[in-house]
Amino acid sequence: MKNHLFTPGPVAVPEDVLLEMARPIIHHRTLEFETIFSEVREGLKSVFHTDQEVLVLASSGTGAMEGAVANTLSSGDRVLVVNGGKFGERWGKISRAYGLEVEEIKVEWGSAVDPAIVKDALDNDPSIRAVLVQASETSTGVMHPTKELAGITKERDDVLLIVDGITAVGVFPVLFDEWGIDVLVGGSQKAFMLPPGLSFAAMSEKAWKFYEKSNLPKFYLDFGAYKKSAEKNSTPYTPAVTLVIGLASVLRRVQAEGLEGVYARAAVLAEATREGLTAIGLEMFAKNSPSPALTAAFSPADIDAKLIIKGLKDKFGMTVAGGQNQAKGKIFRISHMGNIDKADILAAVGAVEAVLREIGYEFEFGAGSRMAGEILSKS
Amino acid sequence: MKNHLFTPGPVAVPEDVLLEMARPIIHHRTLEFETIFSEVREGLKSVFHTDQEVLVLASSGTGAMEGAVANTLSSGDRVLVVNGGKFGERWGKISRAYGLEVEEIKVEWGSAVDPAIVKDALDNDPSIRAVLVQASETSTGVMHPTKELAGITKERDDVLLIVDGITAVGVFPVLFDEWGIDVLVGGSQKAFMLPPGLSFAAMSEKAWKFYEKSNLPKFYLDFGAYKKSAEKNSTPYTPAVTLVIGLASVLRRVQAEGLEGVYARAAVLAEATREGLTAIGLEMFAKNSPSPALTAAFSPADIDAKLIIKGLKDKFGMTVAGGQNQAKGKIFRISHMGNIDKADILAAVGAVEAVLREIGYEFEFGAGSRMAGEILSKS
Repeated sequence: MKNHLFTPGPVAVPEDVLLEMARPIIHHRTLEFETIFSEVREGLKSVFHTDQEVLVLASSGTGAMEGAVANTLSSGDRVLVVNGGKFGERWGKISRAYGLEVEEIKVEWGSAVDPAIVKDALDNDPSIRAVLVQASETSTGVMHPTKELAGITKERDDVLLIVDGITAVGVFPVLFDEWGIDVLVGGSQKAFMLPPGLSFAAMSEKAWKFYEKSNLPKFYLDFGAYKKSAEKNSTPYTPAVTLVIGLASVLRRVQAEGLEGVYARAAVLAEATREGLTAIGLEMFAKNSPSPALTAAFSPADIDAKLIIKGLKDKFGMTVAGGQNQAKGKIFRISHMGNIDKADILAAVGAVEAVLREIGYEFEFGAGSRMAGEILSKS
Repeated sequence: MKNHLFTPGPVAVPEDVLLEMARPIIHHRTLEFETIFSEVREGLKSVFHTDQEVLVLASSGTGAMEGAVANTLSSGDRVLVVNGGKFGERWGKISRAYGLEVEEIKVEWGSAVDPAIVKDALDNDPSIRAVLVQASETSTGVMHPTKELAGITKERDDVLLIVDGITAVGVFPVLFDEWGIDVLVGGSQKAFMLPPGLSFAAMSEKAWKFYEKSNLPKFYLDFGAYKKSAEKNSTPYTPAVTLVIGLASVLRRVQAEGLEGVYARAAVLAEATREGLTAIGLEMFAKNSPSPALTAAFSPADIDAKLIIKGLKDKFGMTVAGGQNQAKGKIFRISHMGNIDKADILAAVGAVEAVLREIGYEFEFGAGSRMAGEILSKS
């Protein structure tokens, strides 16, 4: 049985990218690497929809999230964290680790934040220096309204919008420059369909002004050093060479498909999954604003979601994700990011049906595949 | 022409390890990954000569160096930095970034620190909380006397010995437990002959006591979180899955060869390089205590070292490193770490001779190869 990876990171890496990364390694202080890095810089700017430099770090996405905080804020600063899932919670933990004062907007898991609440919070407390949010909250499969939030923060010179785009950038449009986002973070093992180990960060001019004043300690994650080196097609510390080479290869694929094509593909895969599972009576975890990055569905009829996950693995070689924290045992999550195509989604929906039938859930067997097939064959 | 990588990191990655890492990616929260991680944990303990956990981070070596500081010290602590090269200097920069008070022992580039000077400094200033040093200073090719320094610090409950072992661990014996080192850092792209992107850190019980009191901010580099996760064969944040899989493969190779064999190999390659280059009149940059990790040699007769480096690249496809900072243009550096064998060193010494002859340096052409061949054929 093949291993079918449907987890929201790592996602399956295309075979040709794997082989590209298996070529003999090169040194990073060479013209050869600098040429690749220069290509990567341009490609990343396009995916991030920005003219700003997109910094490339050798770290998990969490490293870039921490960098987003450590490079912009100062001890004792007040920040407003949108906490509607495990990664929203992480913004709070990172901020507290740096001694920031955290005001949290608790959003029910499965819901998007209401921008009006963010606006009120900023109006009521002018000492808030940043709003921290997920463009796509991976633990719930919900998109927060990044564009609307940017509309609120961009009018304020003293408030940054810091966005975790780890399961958003490259999946759906997150228009950094146009919307006025201040910091946007991405990770290699998501839409970039690479192994984990690289993270990315873009900073607006406003964010760089904050950087100048920021007094939080940083060294490895000091974005200023990465920016300075990037301008010479280099990195301040040894880059994850093979992953950067893989990234160049992925960015070429993205360019060939066109970003609009990439976004459209994720959107239709998500729609087919959502509608397919809904057709067999499953409830989606996302009450509104579902992310095209992944679909989180409730396990039906009091069935422990772990049974579905185990059945998918044992019978079909499919790895899907379970719920995290409070959602554990209640949901399963299917990724649509990266190297996933229409056939994969047909297989996934069909497999969920077969497994649910085996567990004893009563439904019209085949209705999900039918619905998914109908949607997918149209695109 | 093939690309022959003689840089002191990244080093050439064995083909079978490259292919192992090119296998379809797996998710990290699976039994399959946990089994690999468990094997990696045991293998790393053996290479680090410790019963302590060896933490695995997705970062360059600098990330683990920063972690070594941020996890043990507290604001305003005084530290004693042995600065005898670019990486010694980096200990100072990291420490200052965290607001520590840095006392530096400046060691002439190319020399090892005298342990008596360290002992005096600690005797004279009981407020010093840590000594930071390189086991092998990559910029100069010198080993500092880690064992002797540990002999000085281990008697003091309130002083840690923090060692950058990035070009030492896996190259020559650094006996963490036996000598009494407190923090030891390693990196994947050196003796571990992997692509860059992983770093390692071991902490003594004394260091973990310091951790409990440390008030420096940290999140992604918080060693406590890695230790807790490691005990469940996991990592707190998405690990660099492919590099961990490659690491398991490398550690199996190391186990098969035996650590003594690995150490003996680096030692003889270093000796052959040193003696071969000395035989044609080159002066070694290391005045004493040369590191088996790499050989740094002065360019002879006022020849710009860049000419040698360019000649090796152009004529023989060999990438060697130049000098950093004050040593720029004066030296070239040849690595003996990882996937380098006797034939590679014969080729390197022979190539240096051929290039020097072409540049016009006068010497007994062939004397270097003869000397290297004699030494290498004995082992």
